[in-house]
Amino acid sequence: MNMNFSELKQNKKNRLKRVQNFLEGKYVQKENIVKLLENLIEPMDTVCIEGNNQKQAEFLAKSFVQVDPEKVNHIHIIQSSLILSEHIEIFEKGIANKLDFSYASIFGSRLLELAQQGKVTIQGMHTFLELYSRYFLDLTPRVALIVAEKADKEGNLYTGANTEDTPVIVEATAFRNGIVIAEVNEIVDKLPRIDIPSDWVDVVVLSPNKPLINPLFTRDPAKINETKILMAMMIIKGIYAKYGVNRLNHGVGYCTSAVELLLPTYAESLGLKGKICQYMAMNPIPTLIPAIESGFIKKVCVYGGETGMDIYAKSRPDIFSTGRDGTLRSNRCYSQMVGLYGIDLFAGATLQMDIFGNSTTATLGRITGFGGAPNIGGNSSGRRHATQSWLMAGNENKKNENDILRGKKLVVQAVETFQPSGAPSFVEELDAWKLQEQLNMPLPPIMIYGEDVTHIVTEEGMANLLLCRTAEDREQAIRCIAGKTSVGLKRDLNKLNELREKRIVTYPEDIGIHKSEASRDLLSAKSIQDLVECSQGLYQPPAKFLR
Amino acid sequence: MNMNFSELKQNKKNRLKRVQNFLEGKYVQKENIVKLLENLIEPMDTVCIEGNNQKQAEFLAKSFVQVDPEKVNHIHIIQSSLILSEHIEIFEKGIANKLDFSYASIFGSRLLELAQQGKVTIQGMHTFLELYSRYFLDLTPRVALIVAEKADKEGNLYTGANTEDTPVIVEATAFRNGIVIAEVNEIVDKLPRIDIPSDWVDVVVLSPNKPLINPLFTRDPAKINETKILMAMMIIKGIYAKYGVNRLNHGVGYCTSAVELLLPTYAESLGLKGKICQYMAMNPIPTLIPAIESGFIKKVCVYGGETGMDIYAKSRPDIFSTGRDGTLRSNRCYSQMVGLYGIDLFAGATLQMDIFGNSTTATLGRITGFGGAPNIGGNSSGRRHATQSWLMAGNENKKNENDILRGKKLVVQAVETFQPSGAPSFVEELDAWKLQEQLNMPLPPIMIYGEDVTHIVTEEGMANLLLCRTAEDREQAIRCIAGKTSVGLKRDLNKLNELREKRIVTYPEDIGIHKSEASRDLLSAKSIQDLVECSQGLYQPPAKFLR
Repeated sequence: MNMNFSELKQNKKNRLKRVQNFLEGKYVQKENIVKLLENLIEPMDTVCIEGNNQKQAEFLAKSFVQVDPEKVNHIHIIQSSLILSEHIEIFEKGIANKLDFSYASIFGSRLLELAQQGKVTIQGMHTFLELYSRYFLDLTPRVALIVAEKADKEGNLYTGANTEDTPVIVEATAFRNGIVIAEVNEIVDKLPRIDIPSDWVDVVVLSPNKPLINPLFTRDPAKINETKILMAMMIIKGIYAKYGVNRLNHGVGYCTSAVELLLPTYAESLGLKGKICQYMAMNPIPTLIPAIESGFIKKVCVYGGETGMDIYAKSRPDIFSTGRDGTLRSNRCYSQMVGLYGIDLFAGATLQMDIFGNSTTATLGRITGFGGAPNIGGNSSGRRHATQSWLMAGNENKKNENDILRGKKLVVQAVETFQPSGAPSFVEELDAWKLQEQLNMPLPPIMIYGEDVTHIVTEEGMANLLLCRTAEDREQAIRCIAGKTSVGLKRDLNKLNELREKRIVTYPEDIGIHKSEASRDLLSAKSIQDLVECSQGLYQPPAKFLR
Repeated sequence: MNMNFSELKQNKKNRLKRVQNFLEGKYVQKENIVKLLENLIEPMDTVCIEGNNQKQAEFLAKSFVQVDPEKVNHIHIIQSSLILSEHIEIFEKGIANKLDFSYASIFGSRLLELAQQGKVTIQGMHTFLELYSRYFLDLTPRVALIVAEKADKEGNLYTGANTEDTPVIVEATAFRNGIVIAEVNEIVDKLPRIDIPSDWVDVVVLSPNKPLINPLFTRDPAKINETKILMAMMIIKGIYAKYGVNRLNHGVGYCTSAVELLLPTYAESLGLKGKICQYMAMNPIPTLIPAIESGFIKKVCVYGGETGMDIYAKSRPDIFSTGRDGTLRSNRCYSQMVGLYGIDLFAGATLQMDIFGNSTTATLGRITGFGGAPNIGGNSSGRRHATQSWLMAGNENKKNENDILRGKKLVVQAVETFQPSGAPSFVEELDAWKLQEQLNMPLPPIMIYGEDVTHIVTEEGMANLLLCRTAEDREQAIRCIAGKTSVGLKRDLNKLNELREKRIVTYPEDIGIHKSEASRDLLSAKSIQDLVECSQGLYQPPAKFLR
């Protein structure tokens, strides 16, 4: 037998030779980037165009869609997030035709159309950590188009405050003889710190524009209403205080932002400082500022950066990970791992929930993907270290007296009974089932399965699914907090009293919360301007928030 | 309020100032290392002494135990593996008194004694990924004592073929203003590649000795007997072929080594080449060589290195991750992630299993820890991409017709009914329960819970737990393959026929395997020497295997 076990290496050498004319050291002129990509990328390649939640390899994406589809086609895109219109155009233009991804942001509908036209085959939807895992096993990028802030002459890279996916993409690609192409905003003699060593990088291009970073996770306290405050009070008093939750993740939304803003006021008045919410795994969002400044929160492990928060994070190195240069270090892969194994509670929101507690953001006519939610909102059977919260939840979850005690992650879905659009949040059947049929998917696109959800909080009250012993209890618990939705109207009033007695259903008054207390006065910051002041001017919000 | 949010940074600066006299650039002379540690490490510090499965920060460990316990004490050790006797001495000498860990190797009994004497408080046992997660949130090393092969003058590090935990320890420590101290075997002008940039490193010391690396995972084919071969045949034909398992992890043991050696012979004769076992997430162990050389295995994602395999791995870059220098890149954190989310099957072994399928390597008189097994052998509720194997297992696992279809990871426990020591592998009650009492642990130290196990394979036959619909079926399925152990003797012979009919219990003849076929002739390599030849001399086994 005469097998060749160095095909990838030889092929890489050949590719780089083909584009040698365009290169000076590792650098290519921006005018030549399209030609370089056209000559370097081969049909059928797996390609990752770095698409994070926030920063994007924008110049490379814009360049890649300009290659000649006669030369470069049948590309298999494997990247976590589709954020730029170029991430869709690549399929429209016939350059790529296969996709593995995690999150499609606003492109859910266009992606569905393309799939129906046969222009893209969706090979798989993954959580972030799942896609990164496959990068190292059966789905390695042949070419990675990545983005960094600065490079030095040798091609060492500085990713700065928004590191996100870069290290994991580069490691998977570079160590499999893949090709790593980086766009940077600036070339300097000496980098503030090295995030990616130059020998992991093949080509560097100076981008003509600084890529746009959107303040995706910033929530303006001015928009937090009394309903959200009431829900936040129930979460703090009814869940965080009860279980002693000290390590957690908050999803993006006004309700969890309300929780953050109530920590130095309401939670502190309940004597909870030093007892709950000391360790947060989440993006560095501005509504954390009052709880940080008051010493409530001790550490924040970040997935990415947030516009306007760079100087604040730099000035709070005990709270945030920072490099030798003082700038934030964010690493989505490690933070997602923390979200799975390091936290005791995940609190998030959803668009639809059924009577089994299954929830999803996938609705008719779109293919979305769930980013990290299934991972962070999933209970890990592999976890072995115990905390008070994890054991208490596990204890409540024991269905029979003789079951072995297992710990359990708390998973809280906080959702108003109706969405801002007027659509009910609670439904008898998720759209996900129709979507599955429509798209011929092996499974319905459910974001978090009911068995992982432990608490549901609405403006009506709270359901503790851990304590339910029968399917009927579970269904009725959900109906009893589903308000005036059709799901809620089917509640059994006799059952309600029983469930309240068992503490499966808790209304605010059951835990001594009066609706009239839920006032905006409880917010430690009522506006973006308040957050700026609280940060001593270190938080510098984008202009649009100050209008 | 006047809070200081830069305490860690200032404290780090102070510490480095205290040891400035010992430093030339980042370098300290080996004669001064004990003094440096004594002056740099403070009481109550969290310290990680890099302890991997294989490579160890040995010189730093030996130096650390020499510090004066009057000056340095109450240290909280947070490290994945306790491998060196110094990892225990640190507690005996009163330098450290708290421990968070993953795996205690041969020190299970000494650790238990120390705990009973009050010299160490075990704060937590974790899987690897779980401990790394906490490094980024609530359990960050203040000081990390790490190991690399080479450093350059600036302090950039080359970890070479055995990278293992280094990147994750360093990232967690360096970006929290912790102190990173590296021992290296060699100082060179130019590194073959940079694995850790110098600005993540504070102190470097040239170690007087090259640390010992043991071939922990190498199994000699000469020691594989017909029983293991029979079990391997059942695994290949009864599980891998049935589900089409293409991405998997093998634990360490003769049975899974037998599977590897049967791939180019038995499995190929069944027409399974290109259909199973193409992507392996496991250490680069020599028994993989014949399957790699014959083109059966396409890729191996490695957790660490293995003695003797460096040149082979370097010569097979299509199979193994290698750096620009050609040398193996192993990264335990990423590989553990792959073990959770990227594979469809885990096959391992255990010391004890109860009648519920719970299994553990923890036995009386020792505190062990489970390394990565709970993670790799755990089903992830967060996984969202589908494969044939995962869906088929999930389908079999549906307890009621109306249950939602979920995918499921296959978890195979392959164990002979009696251990080599003569102890039965199957027991009515695990020692773990007594251990829990003895050590006052919150939960019994169970390695893999029964609900995660899908198949149990013994020399008697195979139990498919997915198909069991009642607790009684499950218990009897286990008893029916437990041979002459007291658990096995309690089998219900009437039930046996029913279970065989339902394919819950499968004996070799039920799937057309005759015990007489299970011959050593099926092994593609019968000795270490055969493996060397198969590798064309590229595998260079340690001398002890060639005696």
